[in-house]
Amino acid sequence: MKKIGVFGASGRVGKILVDLLVDHKDATLSAVFVRKNLDFSMSPGALVTNDYQIFLDACDVVIDFSLPDATTTLLETAIDKHPKPIVIGTTGLLDYQNNLLQVASTKMPILYASNMSFGVAILHEVIRTVSKTLAEFDIEIVEMHHRYKKDAPSGTALALAQTCAEARNLSLENILYGREGNTGERSKDEIAVFAVRGGDIAGKHTVGFFNEGEYLEFTHTATNRATFAKGALRAAIWLSEQKIGYYSIQDALGL
Amino acid sequence: MKKIGVFGASGRVGKILVDLLVDHKDATLSAVFVRKNLDFSMSPGALVTNDYQIFLDACDVVIDFSLPDATTTLLETAIDKHPKPIVIGTTGLLDYQNNLLQVASTKMPILYASNMSFGVAILHEVIRTVSKTLAEFDIEIVEMHHRYKKDAPSGTALALAQTCAEARNLSLENILYGREGNTGERSKDEIAVFAVRGGDIAGKHTVGFFNEGEYLEFTHTATNRATFAKGALRAAIWLSEQKIGYYSIQDALGL
Amino acid sequence: MKKIGVFGASGRVGKILVDLLVDHKDATLSAVFVRKNLDFSMSPGALVTNDYQIFLDACDVVIDFSLPDATTTLLETAIDKHPKPIVIGTTGLLDYQNNLLQVASTKMPILYASNMSFGVAILHEVIRTVSKTLAEFDIEIVEMHHRYKKDAPSGTALALAQTCAEARNLSLENILYGREGNTGERSKDEIAVFAVRGGDIAGKHTVGFFNEGEYLEFTHTATNRATFAKGALRAAIWLSEQKIGYYSIQDALGL
Amino acid sequence: MKKIGVFGASGRVGKILVDLLVDHKDATLSAVFVRKNLDFSMSPGALVTNDYQIFLDACDVVIDFSLPDATTTLLETAIDKHPKPIVIGTTGLLDYQNNLLQVASTKMPILYASNMSFGVAILHEVIRTVSKTLAEFDIEIVEMHHRYKKDAPSGTALALAQTCAEARNLSLENILYGREGNTGERSKDEIAVFAVRGGDIAGKHTVGFFNEGEYLEFTHTATNRATFAKGALRAAIWLSEQKIGYYSIQDALGL
Repeated sequence: MKKIGVFGASGRVGKILVDLLVDHKDATLSAVFVRKNLDFSMSPGALVTNDYQIFLDACDVVIDFSLPDATTTLLETAIDKHPKPIVIGTTGLLDYQNNLLQVASTKMPILYASNMSFGVAILHEVIRTVSKTLAEFDIEIVEMHHRYKKDAPSGTALALAQTCAEARNLSLENILYGREGNTGERSKDEIAVFAVRGGDIAGKHTVGFFNEGEYLEFTHTATNRATFAKGALRAAIWLSEQKIGYYSIQDALGL
Repeated sequence: MKKIGVFGASGRVGKILVDLLVDHKDATLSAVFVRKNLDFSMSPGALVTNDYQIFLDACDVVIDFSLPDATTTLLETAIDKHPKPIVIGTTGLLDYQNNLLQVASTKMPILYASNMSFGVAILHEVIRTVSKTLAEFDIEIVEMHHRYKKDAPSGTALALAQTCAEARNLSLENILYGREGNTGERSKDEIAVFAVRGGDIAGKHTVGFFNEGEYLEFTHTATNRATFAKGALRAAIWLSEQKIGYYSIQDALGL
Repeated sequence: MKKIGVFGASGRVGKILVDLLVDHKDATLSAVFVRKNLDFSMSPGALVTNDYQIFLDACDVVIDFSLPDATTTLLETAIDKHPKPIVIGTTGLLDYQNNLLQVASTKMPILYASNMSFGVAILHEVIRTVSKTLAEFDIEIVEMHHRYKKDAPSGTALALAQTCAEARNLSLENILYGREGNTGERSKDEIAVFAVRGGDIAGKHTVGFFNEGEYLEFTHTATNRATFAKGALRAAIWLSEQKIGYYSIQDALGL
Repeated sequence: MKKIGVFGASGRVGKILVDLLVDHKDATLSAVFVRKNLDFSMSPGALVTNDYQIFLDACDVVIDFSLPDATTTLLETAIDKHPKPIVIGTTGLLDYQNNLLQVASTKMPILYASNMSFGVAILHEVIRTVSKTLAEFDIEIVEMHHRYKKDAPSGTALALAQTCAEARNLSLENILYGREGNTGERSKDEIAVFAVRGGDIAGKHTVGFFNEGEYLEFTHTATNRATFAKGALRAAIWLSEQKIGYYSIQDALGL
């Protein structure tokens, strides 16, 4: 049984992770890191702490769905003295935080993904191929999330746009987030990413490729948030047996 | 046979109108207004002119798919001395040009529509009802057009947003055209309108209503541009028999 | 506080109803009818019984999500001596069972709906109007549900098809469920209803109207099953204050 | 300049081919085969004939969009004495006619595709990969075509289903075309293919992959029929320089 530490246990995905671990056949919840509310009662056997070192020492592998600053402190502590395999699903990281991921990956196995679902992982592979092969097709992305989401577009949508841009050797400056007024004709290299917000949509992403006479649309829909938690857990079990290095969700899934 | 004048005959919709009139059972092409290229050869019997007065005098009813400045001069000439029923499908009109439509409608029958299709007309009726009845649902609009379209969002999408806003007594300042960065949670009253551009899409509009547990999406797709020309022609034949006044496409269709 | 009886408490929707009633501000769970498993432990205060009469006597209003045969016995018992307002969401009823609903509605308030969601209720209103107004448009319906659903098409899809057929005065014999081989051109009056099955989709229904040049698609998506339970509960509270008669979900929502 | 022969020149796609060849930079219309109406006036320079041998002898390469029986006679004539590279887009071929294609491909270059568009060709590659990689996902296909289409499902939809079935080593007997009544839970291996018919839709195909928690939908939309003619013409120019053998549209596109 792998001993899993959940960092960000009171967040949306964190809570689902704790639930999933109650009866898991290959993994057990060994520790939760909670900033406040140390009377965390969801999982009786698990260590509940707000001490980074004690938390890290109690786990075989850590899953982090938190906020950028918390992720930063976690990584710094781990790099300093307590390296552990860490699966990171926190979105909205800044450049220096992404660099910190790279530094950490020279001391421990690090897996970062803006989206842990199986389907999104393969969607990246698909759109990489299509972006290259259908080079004359225009690329546009539309994502949909619940009304409570605070950032836009989603980390997943930005990652999809980045995959398309890389496949065509385009600068990320070609990505835009809205169109208004006399924009003129669409330029060939621009990639628009639109963030629809409403209701309680768990997450839907469409990458479209448009040409004279035909277009293709590739859509991923999450029907509930457990999908992301399940994917992260599967990735964590896999990562706990890997060497030091930087990994993607595609690696974990063998794509 | 109604004598139709096509204003903007060298534009996308104008050309289709000229084609449709070649063999029409209830209407004939009596005049085309063309800024340059007076050797317009598409319709042998019709008057070809760049003189506003001569053009107006030659028709029973005018169909205008041009640009805002041309529409302005057409209306001013008609108001001044040559009132005629005019169907206007030109988009991108400014406030003073919209006012001019109102002024004109005190002298002649004026029908303005950002979209002449049957389906879009009924879509307005549908979303007006739904916006009122499902008051707690979030509204978002996504439109798609070909890569050559120069304005964004489409006049049709803006009109749909306006219909929703009116139904809820919301200011048009609640309409936004993109989301980027730390936007925070969605406010209840905002209505986002996104303009996807690519390939040769004739026009697709989706109005979505989103709530906890469920959402509705109402989508209109134009499969070719002849739809708009056909709707305008049907509206023109209808308008030629109306009294002085301001009409919508819904009026023409008896909705 | 309305005293609610849940009939079919161990079914998918029944379980959610029991959950929703734990903390409800206007209603309380007074009784659950369970065929077996009388050690139903979910709601300590409620009566748990497999006796129809005792069950009916303990409630102000009953919500039924069960199977046709169970619904039959419930109605027969209620008609005989124990009339109560009953909200029925059981699907797959046969003709004689639908007749029984009518008989029951002469003795007590009966509300039947194949789908209790707000959005589906308004969708019926929308498609009734569009079916009439756009009489030359072809109608086709596609629904999607999870891989475990045992009947096809869904009761909701069949009800939507029926609404369209009624609006056009068409016989239900025009409804078909698949197309294969040399079908020939589509006849004007046929309405196809297709049942996609896969994954854990809570429920998605699209009614499409297709013509030369344009088409409309109206889609309802349930993001979770609680939607149906919430709608039923709202309808039950409303029904408990109505006179004897037969009601639709549209009545309860004031559409 | 390649000399192109159009077989089935009075059909929908055939007419577009003749149009496209009027001003083509790499190809010219050398002959049209027309069963009746020898006064085919669309392309003054081209040979118009209803003689199979004369037709074949006048071309470098033939494009066939006709009906199964005509394709059969064309192939038999070519096999017998007049081998030529032939691109075949005729749908609805029976087993013995598919065998005839194989026989022909031992005497001349033969390219067969149920759909000549670039986008559909890459869609086959995508769904082959996804069918294998996401083996636990349910597969379902929905296609949409205009109200005049006489066969169902489309040849393209059947080919897509076949690609999925092959990727999972499934028998084609798992393909079904409708669901009605008490079907029971979905079996893991079945693949439903639904044919929506309405309006003037040029062609839309969606292949969906559904699992607990998430699903993927891959959609190809043709915005006009010229897409298929353009693809066939590109394929024909390519095929005219290939060796004897059997080719797919993927081969022509270098996928």
